[in-house]
Amino acid sequence: MKLRIRVPWAFLLVVGAGFVLSLQALAQTDPLLSWNDGPAKQAIVEFVNTTADKASPKFVPPEERIAVFDQDGTLWVEHPIYTQVVYCLERVPAVVKERPELARAEPFKTVLSGNREAIAKFSMDDLFKILAATLTGMSVEEFQAEVKRWLGTARDLRWQRPYSELTYLPMIELLKYLRANGYRTYIVTGGGQDFVRVYAKEVYGIPPEQVVGTAGGTGYGYDKSGRPFLTKEPKMLLNDNNAGKPEGIHLMIGRRPYAAFGNSTGDRQMLEYTKAGDGTRLAMLVLHDDAAREYAYGPALGLPNSKVGTFTQALYDEATKHGWIVISMKSDWRRVFAFEQ
Amino acid sequence: MKLRIRVPWAFLLVVGAGFVLSLQALAQTDPLLSWNDGPAKQAIVEFVNTTADKASPKFVPPEERIAVFDQDGTLWVEHPIYTQVVYCLERVPAVVKERPELARAEPFKTVLSGNREAIAKFSMDDLFKILAATLTGMSVEEFQAEVKRWLGTARDLRWQRPYSELTYLPMIELLKYLRANGYRTYIVTGGGQDFVRVYAKEVYGIPPEQVVGTAGGTGYGYDKSGRPFLTKEPKMLLNDNNAGKPEGIHLMIGRRPYAAFGNSTGDRQMLEYTKAGDGTRLAMLVLHDDAAREYAYGPALGLPNSKVGTFTQALYDEATKHGWIVISMKSDWRRVFAFEQ
Repeated sequence: MKLRIRVPWAFLLVVGAGFVLSLQALAQTDPLLSWNDGPAKQAIVEFVNTTADKASPKFVPPEERIAVFDQDGTLWVEHPIYTQVVYCLERVPAVVKERPELARAEPFKTVLSGNREAIAKFSMDDLFKILAATLTGMSVEEFQAEVKRWLGTARDLRWQRPYSELTYLPMIELLKYLRANGYRTYIVTGGGQDFVRVYAKEVYGIPPEQVVGTAGGTGYGYDKSGRPFLTKEPKMLLNDNNAGKPEGIHLMIGRRPYAAFGNSTGDRQMLEYTKAGDGTRLAMLVLHDDAAREYAYGPALGLPNSKVGTFTQALYDEATKHGWIVISMKSDWRRVFAFEQ
Repeated sequence: MKLRIRVPWAFLLVVGAGFVLSLQALAQTDPLLSWNDGPAKQAIVEFVNTTADKASPKFVPPEERIAVFDQDGTLWVEHPIYTQVVYCLERVPAVVKERPELARAEPFKTVLSGNREAIAKFSMDDLFKILAATLTGMSVEEFQAEVKRWLGTARDLRWQRPYSELTYLPMIELLKYLRANGYRTYIVTGGGQDFVRVYAKEVYGIPPEQVVGTAGGTGYGYDKSGRPFLTKEPKMLLNDNNAGKPEGIHLMIGRRPYAAFGNSTGDRQMLEYTKAGDGTRLAMLVLHDDAAREYAYGPALGLPNSKVGTFTQALYDEATKHGWIVISMKSDWRRVFAFEQ
């Protein structure tokens, strides 16, 4: 913008000052624009004002400002099936090509048959076999490249969009709002740590060292030229669900978070642990009660559980008892996805 | 400082500019003042100039600037015995008070006898029993408070100083120099992760989330009032020595470091892994060759190994072959400790 009119300098100075002030006001648009006014949005803003303002008696030093987020169902869609499980199922043909003996063994035979009803009935044991076969045995770099390639082409069934677009816009705003106020944002996911790290920076602005997840071991070795590399091994180091979440937080961060966000019983202990700290702490749960824009599921709504996230009545009761804030997707979120008009 | 002499404004401007420039020069005193000029110091400065200068063809983006440091023998004295082992031995009486049956069991009986020669002959199995008994079974907060208390009163035998003063001044300068150039500094230690985290911020300026170490599991539970807490359990999650170092770096950081610093065969794989990355990487080993100011030990010097650090001839040969820089404590360090005159 250029001012071309000739005016006295002193006048320009006065006008200029006003202009700068109004630009600042414009820049200060609501950082939580996709949230409706209501108790959830209010709780977030109050929490930040209480902990990040030096004048506040409950001020938290920047180095202690840690906020932890579950991923599936909290930051992006988890229904009807976790994205990582889709990845693993779609990897089965490539794995069978390298290990043809698996074609005749269950559960791989069923996966190859494409029988969705049978696949939907897999036990946890079946799933673990598929995860172990598709997520281990290759180098860390090979795995990262493969996940990256898959994410570039895979589309979800309902919206026909890349999974990275199925993130909740209000939660992306929340991540940015917390970071703008000196919080370091961590993902603490039951999903695979190595899997989520591949895209967390691009999708959530969260670097790999701030992703805590279910983690397998790696094995150090050398290739033919003597160059060292790490192989992903089928050895569980951290099951980052339920009690594993606070345990994982202690292992990987070593500090108690000031804010925790989840959506299912798998996040219960993480929220308990966060709220049990001194001072002002924030615990919030996303309730999937919006069948039109996303999904509605869980006993807390009088509906059956999703195959994945589990928001039980007991969790709802504990939230009420301990002052956790329940985020109603339907009433608290003005927009759910960035691609919505 | 106030200028009180009346001089023309234009003159003041010129002089003022010169004054500001000379102040900047003063502020730019050598950040590696305790290093003698030589190949080690030169390698560090060249590495930083190459990777942290935007104009450099080998520029590394700030988020990827990771530097990892072994602790014992690299950042502070490890000889004649690791500080953490001293802590564990001195904890034995308190543990026996709570579990009197241990008084009659080895190796606790020998520890209580105070027979130093016998203690020096402990096997790894003996040591593990002592570590398990003294480092687990309490809450994370109880452990932290106990270590903090101990560090405040414990003194080493030779210098009669708190262990926190036995850090190497040149390495403290190096940590600060790297951080001033956008590097995040991590400790990657064979010592206990929870132990080192207690003092790492105060002693090294390194926050808990940037301490990777040998890590045990924790167990999530509730006290009588229903408040959740984590108990330290005798379950090994990560043995952060040898191959465990690159494996631990992958688990906890998820990025390959650009610089790695160690002093023994336990750091070999970490240095290999660091140097195997693309672009410019720095790997350095501290050689303990200064019996007067600190200690001299290791086969690379034709001397027997310390009970702890092991700088073998094979490690020396690998360093030479791969372009790792060996830091001679005797000739590369002008000062070893901050308390030296």
